[in-house]
Amino acid sequence: MVIVLKNTATKQQVNELVSWLEGYSVKTNLVQGVHSNIIGLIGDTVHIDIEAIEANDCVEAVRRVQEPYKNANRKFHPDNTVLDIGGRLIGGSKTQIIAGPCSVESEKQLMETAIACKQAGATMLRGGAFKPRTSPYSFQGMREEGIQLLLKAKKETGLPIVTEIMSLAHIDMFAEVDVIQVGARNMQNFELLKALGRCDKPILLKRGLSSTLEELLMSAEYIMSEGNSKVILCERGIRTFEPMTRNTLDISAVALLKQKSHLPIVVDPSHATGLVKLVEPMSLAAVAAGCDGLEIEVHCDPKKALSDGSQQLTPQAFADTMKKIKALAEFMGKPVDDVE
Amino acid sequence: MVIVLKNTATKQQVNELVSWLEGYSVKTNLVQGVHSNIIGLIGDTVHIDIEAIEANDCVEAVRRVQEPYKNANRKFHPDNTVLDIGGRLIGGSKTQIIAGPCSVESEKQLMETAIACKQAGATMLRGGAFKPRTSPYSFQGMREEGIQLLLKAKKETGLPIVTEIMSLAHIDMFAEVDVIQVGARNMQNFELLKALGRCDKPILLKRGLSSTLEELLMSAEYIMSEGNSKVILCERGIRTFEPMTRNTLDISAVALLKQKSHLPIVVDPSHATGLVKLVEPMSLAAVAAGCDGLEIEVHCDPKKALSDGSQQLTPQAFADTMKKIKALAEFMGKPVDDVE
Amino acid sequence: MVIVLKNTATKQQVNELVSWLEGYSVKTNLVQGVHSNIIGLIGDTVHIDIEAIEANDCVEAVRRVQEPYKNANRKFHPDNTVLDIGGRLIGGSKTQIIAGPCSVESEKQLMETAIACKQAGATMLRGGAFKPRTSPYSFQGMREEGIQLLLKAKKETGLPIVTEIMSLAHIDMFAEVDVIQVGARNMQNFELLKALGRCDKPILLKRGLSSTLEELLMSAEYIMSEGNSKVILCERGIRTFEPMTRNTLDISAVALLKQKSHLPIVVDPSHATGLVKLVEPMSLAAVAAGCDGLEIEVHCDPKKALSDGSQQLTPQAFADTMKKIKALAEFMGKPVDDVE
Amino acid sequence: MVIVLKNTATKQQVNELVSWLEGYSVKTNLVQGVHSNIIGLIGDTVHIDIEAIEANDCVEAVRRVQEPYKNANRKFHPDNTVLDIGGRLIGGSKTQIIAGPCSVESEKQLMETAIACKQAGATMLRGGAFKPRTSPYSFQGMREEGIQLLLKAKKETGLPIVTEIMSLAHIDMFAEVDVIQVGARNMQNFELLKALGRCDKPILLKRGLSSTLEELLMSAEYIMSEGNSKVILCERGIRTFEPMTRNTLDISAVALLKQKSHLPIVVDPSHATGLVKLVEPMSLAAVAAGCDGLEIEVHCDPKKALSDGSQQLTPQAFADTMKKIKALAEFMGKPVDDVE
Repeated sequence: MVIVLKNTATKQQVNELVSWLEGYSVKTNLVQGVHSNIIGLIGDTVHIDIEAIEANDCVEAVRRVQEPYKNANRKFHPDNTVLDIGGRLIGGSKTQIIAGPCSVESEKQLMETAIACKQAGATMLRGGAFKPRTSPYSFQGMREEGIQLLLKAKKETGLPIVTEIMSLAHIDMFAEVDVIQVGARNMQNFELLKALGRCDKPILLKRGLSSTLEELLMSAEYIMSEGNSKVILCERGIRTFEPMTRNTLDISAVALLKQKSHLPIVVDPSHATGLVKLVEPMSLAAVAAGCDGLEIEVHCDPKKALSDGSQQLTPQAFADTMKKIKALAEFMGKPVDDVE
Repeated sequence: MVIVLKNTATKQQVNELVSWLEGYSVKTNLVQGVHSNIIGLIGDTVHIDIEAIEANDCVEAVRRVQEPYKNANRKFHPDNTVLDIGGRLIGGSKTQIIAGPCSVESEKQLMETAIACKQAGATMLRGGAFKPRTSPYSFQGMREEGIQLLLKAKKETGLPIVTEIMSLAHIDMFAEVDVIQVGARNMQNFELLKALGRCDKPILLKRGLSSTLEELLMSAEYIMSEGNSKVILCERGIRTFEPMTRNTLDISAVALLKQKSHLPIVVDPSHATGLVKLVEPMSLAAVAAGCDGLEIEVHCDPKKALSDGSQQLTPQAFADTMKKIKALAEFMGKPVDDVE
Repeated sequence: MVIVLKNTATKQQVNELVSWLEGYSVKTNLVQGVHSNIIGLIGDTVHIDIEAIEANDCVEAVRRVQEPYKNANRKFHPDNTVLDIGGRLIGGSKTQIIAGPCSVESEKQLMETAIACKQAGATMLRGGAFKPRTSPYSFQGMREEGIQLLLKAKKETGLPIVTEIMSLAHIDMFAEVDVIQVGARNMQNFELLKALGRCDKPILLKRGLSSTLEELLMSAEYIMSEGNSKVILCERGIRTFEPMTRNTLDISAVALLKQKSHLPIVVDPSHATGLVKLVEPMSLAAVAAGCDGLEIEVHCDPKKALSDGSQQLTPQAFADTMKKIKALAEFMGKPVDDVE
Repeated sequence: MVIVLKNTATKQQVNELVSWLEGYSVKTNLVQGVHSNIIGLIGDTVHIDIEAIEANDCVEAVRRVQEPYKNANRKFHPDNTVLDIGGRLIGGSKTQIIAGPCSVESEKQLMETAIACKQAGATMLRGGAFKPRTSPYSFQGMREEGIQLLLKAKKETGLPIVTEIMSLAHIDMFAEVDVIQVGARNMQNFELLKALGRCDKPILLKRGLSSTLEELLMSAEYIMSEGNSKVILCERGIRTFEPMTRNTLDISAVALLKQKSHLPIVVDPSHATGLVKLVEPMSLAAVAAGCDGLEIEVHCDPKKALSDGSQQLTPQAFADTMKKIKALAEFMGKPVDDVE
């Protein structure tokens, strides 16, 4: 960490600041310049609050040099984290495809979709039981019943289940779920993250709509610092000024997160774009950029979907897209996992 | 709601769409154009899912015409909502000043700050007991003990208490709190909003960092549709590309929300800017734009603050700023409430 | 400037970097840490390219400490720049009101509007002769004829003229114009800025839709470094994700620019919001935040306007708003200039 | 176009609006609803100004239904535009690779880089002679001399030349340039666009940092409406809140622009990310998404580069990346052009 001092800083102010800083077991090193002086901090600065330093009258600016995350940091864990989800390994040499409906709407809808997804080559099944909707008047999900149906679909197809949690209060219902998803709107629901850090299940953590990659890694750190290191990161589009897509899929996040972190990274082209026509090209782009998996929405009858109809593929469209994804993933050296 | 049909739409597709729509008890009206045809929907479209319509093969685009919120909508409630918070009326002819530390850190820190705030003219006391922090390694708040200290400060100063809730699980601790704050990161924590909609306390709902004003109003709608109409909206800056301020304070939100909604609107210049030097000019701008209150961070010793030190005013700076706020609020015809 | 070195940096790499840096007449100071080493640069770093440093294999990151602008920097010019525009002083103890139509459309329209603006208390006249329009099919302005009409209106009303230049090729037409405006879309048209830096006229420089404040100041620096120090900065809204306003007016820019720079700062609430109903509250907010002037669009018959009809005030609405602006500016201690 | 009327609209107001609209040779169709009435416009609405309609007292909102661009619209030109640039066809069945230094800095630097680019398989040569730099104190390019060197490099290597224009005043210097580039900061320099629309050369038009895709297409329309239909669109990253990359590369733009327009689309991963390490994964992602070409910065000695050193590949890194790009482009069915 580097602290830039004001021109007007007095010796006494600087001395006080230095003693205060050294209370955090870091060493300080004063560099005198022509226009301003600088204090370099040496040691572990993760626990020092930048804003507390900035509140000193003699400080002009503070620049962090090291990343503020440790458990999620590739520097300290050079090897990829590979998670085993019901026999599917994510984060290693295979690409995983999580497919299924946006919402679980009925047994018939879920089973029909799940079977179609499996036939087309999906390796896990997604489906929303608890649905975060902008409007309280929109369909809110089948909730506990939805989770029961997912478990039934798992039994039927053998596909591990990925589904979203919206509140700590529901955590017992997720006991048999394979991967617990934290949605974009809850990426900084820190109490939820801490609780998930104390369970022993893989957590698929979606990037918030306006979250930086560092914030995403800090949210992963919340889970990991409580003991659960099974975190999967998910890029699902960020909010920008562009109205043609629902969000802007930040594919550079895939490559950056792979460099900065050892955790598996998944891309959700369905929510990112909100447009059926973009799911295939964005899936291919994500695979080419090196992602470990895709999460794709498929619905047996999208125009009757109770949520996000405009972004869900028909089973036929999904099967067609899967052929291209499989071929490309193979070409890139990280083939789609073969579940049989 | 207006549905634009594709050129390629067949009669049969359009007929099917029309019957499906009329199942929602709305009337449809087909307008034939040269390049494309349009269906106008007449009636209450709040319950119709735009994306389900967009999923139809024959649909090019859907445009909403009416606002999707009702309880929060000024059209249906032309008069301002005025809330009584321990005798202070917010939303009417007075300006309320909520001041206090970012975090409750100790009894001494809180009491000293609270008394200074009151002396300078603050009308309510804020203080974070549960603290949403980006890093798990940062101070997380005194939690239950913090709330106890706030209640003690309330007893001491007579100021009503505003403090943030981060989880449903803590709701019992807020029984004697006057205003429950929902932070920006929880603005779309829908399960929390629904629960707060079933309690009988004013809720100060902060705009999410990347939330549109319509989404803020929809989150208010979540609370109100469960029965609690005591919602205060809070603009606290949005995330943009500008790095000089922590967030960009959207002052136009004040005027727009006053036009679109009947709910009181408060501005938080401290979090919006993250800079002590901007708190005064942004407070004055917010008052000039017509806000009903301000939420300002004050700390008896900012450079020792455990969170957000760079944005908290000293008691002296707050007293100086309050003089200007009071004079301007008086001039604008909405004087700061006189608590004595 | 602070250079953070990689862990893997070799002595030889660091030595080479240091010699290269010292070629720029700066002193270097190496600080050794536990995880990484830092080089502090002492001296004038304005001419050193950060990215050239970052291209070195041994460099992890570079952090600038000093502002990269000099002529526009208040540190080196503590006093406010006050410009005399036909007898109106901007940047000092008076508030200037630049009003007039978005586009000059006809002699009748311009004269009628100009006279109404003057009567209501405007101190300068704006009007677009060259119009930057998103669509080539929209009205492109009366161009040279428009400038002639503006000069006629100046003769008639005595108001100095502010109008936008879109190309170097037109500069001769602006010989009698009082203030040349550079629009948001040309804020980084550097060839134009350099040319304007060589003329002796006040330049009203609008912030680009996605420009940071530092970039705005660097564009001012382009003009000033060529010899023209008569620059007026203009905040006119930035592009964000919020769709309810055309742009988001960043009022904190007013206070920040006043702190960072000595140049006058004007706010354009008309383009920022695109909504007639927001012009008054945003004007008041800008005055409360300390701006030196406002630029407001007024049209004698907005619904017949050839551009931006939705944001132009009628003469009556402008006169009503002016009353409030005058009273507030007076209250804030920077009264609207009295042109008589 | 659909016009939503206010509840309070009187018959007379609506009649006046309708007559005014019909003056533009469109037909109107009134739809009466319960809460509000709608006017549907039938015919060519490209020349009608939305904001002029919104300025009517009786209008609540206006929604455009058709795209406002014609020449650039795939609806009216279903086949891909394929441009011949010195024998390289762009927009069709081949991928073009435009490579070279950010800036032309010397004959030695340019020749060395150009030869290396060609050897690695680049099909065109880029190089900045006029450089748009944020700071007036940064290297501004070799200007005319730079163009002369580019033409020399073209002679030497046979590669067509792509270089940026910054001002109309320089257009004569571009007579022998193969592709004139319009930079992001000039995307809405409309006077420049119009002039380029009157020359007979391919124009590579870069998306502005905060420009929507519709605005990019409207800027293409400016060029095309003047007669020059040889436009190549370029996605080069947009400005978002994410600080880890310089800009956020919007890869979905590739697929969307291919759907909306018939023009060739190129991606610039170097400027988009500003990071050498991301050039390869983003190049691969862009190819997988279906782009027609890439523009990649290569420098014979990046750490001595006078601009953008941190994003330029060494010749060796470029050669390595080209191998992967070639293999992927071949796999995707759009092989890199073979210039021999």
